[in-house]
Amino acid sequence: MVKDIVKMIKEGKYIEVRNEITKMNVVDIALFLEELNNEHLLIIFRMLPKDIAANVFSYMSYEQQKYIIESFTDKEIKTIIGKLFLDDTIDFLEEMPANVVKKILKNTDEQRRKLINQFLNYPENSAGSIMTIEYVELKKEMTIKHALRHIKKTGIDKETIDTCYVIDDSSRKLEGIVPIRKLILNDENMIIKDIMDTNIKYVYTIDDQEKVAALFKKYDLISMPVVDKENRLVGIITIDDIVDVIEQENTEDFQKMAAMQPSEKRYLETNVTFLAKQRITRLLILMISATFTANIIRRFEDVLQSVVILAAFIPMLMDTGGNAGSQSSTLIIRGLALGEIKLKDVFKVLYKELQVSCVVGSVLAVLNFIKIYYVEKVGFKVSAIVCLSLFCTIVLAKIVGGVLPIIAKKLKMDPAIMAGPLITTIVDAVALIIYFAMASRFLLLI
Amino acid sequence: MVKDIVKMIKEGKYIEVRNEITKMNVVDIALFLEELNNEHLLIIFRMLPKDIAANVFSYMSYEQQKYIIESFTDKEIKTIIGKLFLDDTIDFLEEMPANVVKKILKNTDEQRRKLINQFLNYPENSAGSIMTIEYVELKKEMTIKHALRHIKKTGIDKETIDTCYVIDDSSRKLEGIVPIRKLILNDENMIIKDIMDTNIKYVYTIDDQEKVAALFKKYDLISMPVVDKENRLVGIITIDDIVDVIEQENTEDFQKMAAMQPSEKRYLETNVTFLAKQRITRLLILMISATFTANIIRRFEDVLQSVVILAAFIPMLMDTGGNAGSQSSTLIIRGLALGEIKLKDVFKVLYKELQVSCVVGSVLAVLNFIKIYYVEKVGFKVSAIVCLSLFCTIVLAKIVGGVLPIIAKKLKMDPAIMAGPLITTIVDAVALIIYFAMASRFLLLI
Repeated sequence: MVKDIVKMIKEGKYIEVRNEITKMNVVDIALFLEELNNEHLLIIFRMLPKDIAANVFSYMSYEQQKYIIESFTDKEIKTIIGKLFLDDTIDFLEEMPANVVKKILKNTDEQRRKLINQFLNYPENSAGSIMTIEYVELKKEMTIKHALRHIKKTGIDKETIDTCYVIDDSSRKLEGIVPIRKLILNDENMIIKDIMDTNIKYVYTIDDQEKVAALFKKYDLISMPVVDKENRLVGIITIDDIVDVIEQENTEDFQKMAAMQPSEKRYLETNVTFLAKQRITRLLILMISATFTANIIRRFEDVLQSVVILAAFIPMLMDTGGNAGSQSSTLIIRGLALGEIKLKDVFKVLYKELQVSCVVGSVLAVLNFIKIYYVEKVGFKVSAIVCLSLFCTIVLAKIVGGVLPIIAKKLKMDPAIMAGPLITTIVDAVALIIYFAMASRFLLLI
Repeated sequence: MVKDIVKMIKEGKYIEVRNEITKMNVVDIALFLEELNNEHLLIIFRMLPKDIAANVFSYMSYEQQKYIIESFTDKEIKTIIGKLFLDDTIDFLEEMPANVVKKILKNTDEQRRKLINQFLNYPENSAGSIMTIEYVELKKEMTIKHALRHIKKTGIDKETIDTCYVIDDSSRKLEGIVPIRKLILNDENMIIKDIMDTNIKYVYTIDDQEKVAALFKKYDLISMPVVDKENRLVGIITIDDIVDVIEQENTEDFQKMAAMQPSEKRYLETNVTFLAKQRITRLLILMISATFTANIIRRFEDVLQSVVILAAFIPMLMDTGGNAGSQSSTLIIRGLALGEIKLKDVFKVLYKELQVSCVVGSVLAVLNFIKIYYVEKVGFKVSAIVCLSLFCTIVLAKIVGGVLPIIAKKLKMDPAIMAGPLITTIVDAVALIIYFAMASRFLLLI
C-alpha cells in the first residue's frame, strides 16, 4: 500500500495519489504518512485538501508535525493552524520547541494568539487545559427554526454541534443545554427556553481532569460545559478527550503501583536518562527500607547458624506474603479509583480481608506442610514453623494490603502508592520477625 | 436531602416529592433511591413519569431492580420493560435469577422476546453483547428534508440519533453513515447518497469488545455500527458503553498483574468464597515455583553455614530485583495494551532496558556498597559480592521484565500475566544462583 503510493509519487501520478489518499480516514492517513520519508511526506501533505490536512495534522507524530512547521512557509502555516481546532493546537504547542512555537504564534492573528496564551496558562491536567472553544451558542428566546438557521450559519467549523449551549446575552452565564436531536424532534416554532435542559452538569476551568472524567462516567455524558469562576461559559470538553484522560489516569496508576514516578510519555519515545530517573528514587527508598529485614535476620543469626535450613524458606515466605498483599491492595486501589469503595467501607474491607486471608492462608499453609514435611522430608518442627509463619504472613499481608490504600486516601494521598512494592517491604519485616521468633522459641530450647 | 424527602413522603406530600425528584438527573435519582427502604422505594418509583422511570431503572442496583420486578404487577412490568432500551434490558436480565427473568419474558411481546433471546446468545464480551438496536435507519435515495421528517417520526425512542445509518432496502447491508449535523448543515434538497460517508469503521457481532474499544480510541468515535457475517446492519455500539469496557479491561489487567483471576464483580458485592478462589490458584502456583529458590539455598547450605551473614541480604536482593522487574514489565504491558509498543519493537525494548538497567543497577549497587561496607561495617568481600549480585539481579530483572510480556503477546497469551509476581519468582531463582555461586567461589576458597 505504502509502496504502491510511493511508486505513484515517483512516477508523478499526483492526481491518482491524491484520489487514493483522500478516500482514507484521517487517522489512517496520519499513520500512512508516518511510513514516508520527509521528502514524500511534504509532497503528499501539500496535496491534501486544506480541511483534511488540518485534521490529519492533529493525528501526526510530534516529530513529523515539527518537521512540517519547520519546512512550511508562513502562508502555509497560517492556513493549517487556522483550520486546526483550538484544543488540538494547544496539545501540539505544548510539545513543540520554542522556535516552532514562535513561528506559529507569529502566523496567528492577535485574537487567537490571546486565546492560545490563555489556554496555555491553565494548570496541567485541569479542565481548562483539555477544553475547546468550538461549540454552538444559542439564546433562550430563539425559536427552533431560528436556532437551526443560526447553527447552519455558524456550525460548520464547530467541533461538536451535537449539543448546543444556551447562554445569557449580557452576562454570558450558562443557562441550559439542548441536544441537537431535540431541535429536530420538536416543532420548529417552539422556543429554546421550553425545550432546554437546565439541570446541567458542568465543571470549572481549574477542576482536575480526573474529576471531569468521573462525571462523564457517572452520567454517561458525550460533552460537558466548562465555566469560569463567574459561571460564564468558556469552553466544552468532549468525550474523545475524556477517553484519553481515562487511559492516562490508568497508566499513572499502573506506574505508581509498580513504584515509578508517573509519566505521560510513550515508552519508545522516552530517553534512557528519563527512564532511569523515573525508576531510581522509589527503588532506592524500598531498598533502604529492606535494611530492616537485613537487621532482623542479623539479630537472629544464632538461630540461623544452628538451623541453616530456615534460610531456605525465607524467599517462599516473603514472595507469598508479597503476592497476597498485592492482590488485596490492587483490588482496593482499583475499587477506590472507580468509586466502588468509599472511605466509610474501611471496616467492611477489613472484615472481608480477614475472612479471605484465613481461607487462603489455611489452604496454602496445609498444602505447603504436606509438600515440605511429607515430600521433602523436612523435620516436623521446622515444617510446622514455616507453615504457621506462612499463615500469619498471608493474614497480615492481606489486612495491610486492604487497609493501607484506604488510609492513604483518608490522608489525601494517592492510594496507588500503597501497592505491591511498599506492602511487600512492610510485610517482609513483620513476617521475618514472626518466623524467627517462633523458630528461636521452639527450636533452640531443645 | 434524603431525610427531607422521606419526611415529605410520611406527611403524604406526594406531589411535592414528585416535583422535587423529577427535577433531578436520572443517575442522581437512582443513587437517591438506593438510600431508601423498600417500602419508600416502591412508593417513589411508582410516582415517576414512565419515561424517567425506565431510565432510572437502568441505573439502579441489581438488588433494587430485582425487588421492583418481584413486587410489580404484570402490567407495571410491561410498561417499564417496554420503555427500557434493549441493551439495558440485556445487561439487567444477565444478572437476574431465573424467576425474575421468567416474569419479565412473560410480559414481553413475542418479537422483542425473540430479540432478547438472540442478544442473550451473543458470546460474553462480544460486540453483539454490548450493542443496542435503537438507532435511526435512512435510505440513500432520501432527500435531507425527507430524512428529517422520517427521524422526527421514528427518532423519539432511539438511544442515539446523533449518527444515522444508511442501509440498502432489500439486503439490509450497511452502505453509509450520516452524522446528524450534516443533515442540519446542508441544503434540505440534497440527497443522502451525496452527503453520506462510505468510509465506515464497523465491527462484527462476534468481535471482542476489546477490539471495538481500540477502534473507538483510534478513530475518536462516538458510535459504531455492528454487522452480522453477511454484512447486514444489526445494531450499534455507543461510546458510554465503550467507556465501561475500557475501565473493565483495565480492571482485568490490574487483577491479572497482581496474580488474580480477573472478575467483573464489585469488591464489596463479592462473597468471601469467590474472593478466596480468585486469589488462591496463582498464589499456589507461585508458591510452588518458589520451591526452586528453596532448593537453591539448600544446595548452598555449606556456604551459608560458614558465612551466615549472607542470609541477611537475601530479602533486599530479592525485593529490589522483584521491584526492578515489575517496573519494566508494567511499562511494557501497558505500552502493549495501548498499542504504543508493537511486537516488532522487541529489540528496541531489549536495548533500552539494558541501558536503563545498567544505569539503575550501578547507582543502586554503589549506594548499597557505601551503606553496608562503610556504615554497617560488613566485610569487604561480602559487601562486594552483595553489590555485584545486586547489579546483576537488576539488569536481569529489567531484561526479563521487558521481554517476557512481548514474548507472551507473540505467543497469543495475555501479556498482563507476565507481571511483577511471575517476574519476581523467575528473577529470585537466578539471582540466588548468582549470589551463592559468587559467594562460594570467593569466600570459601580462603
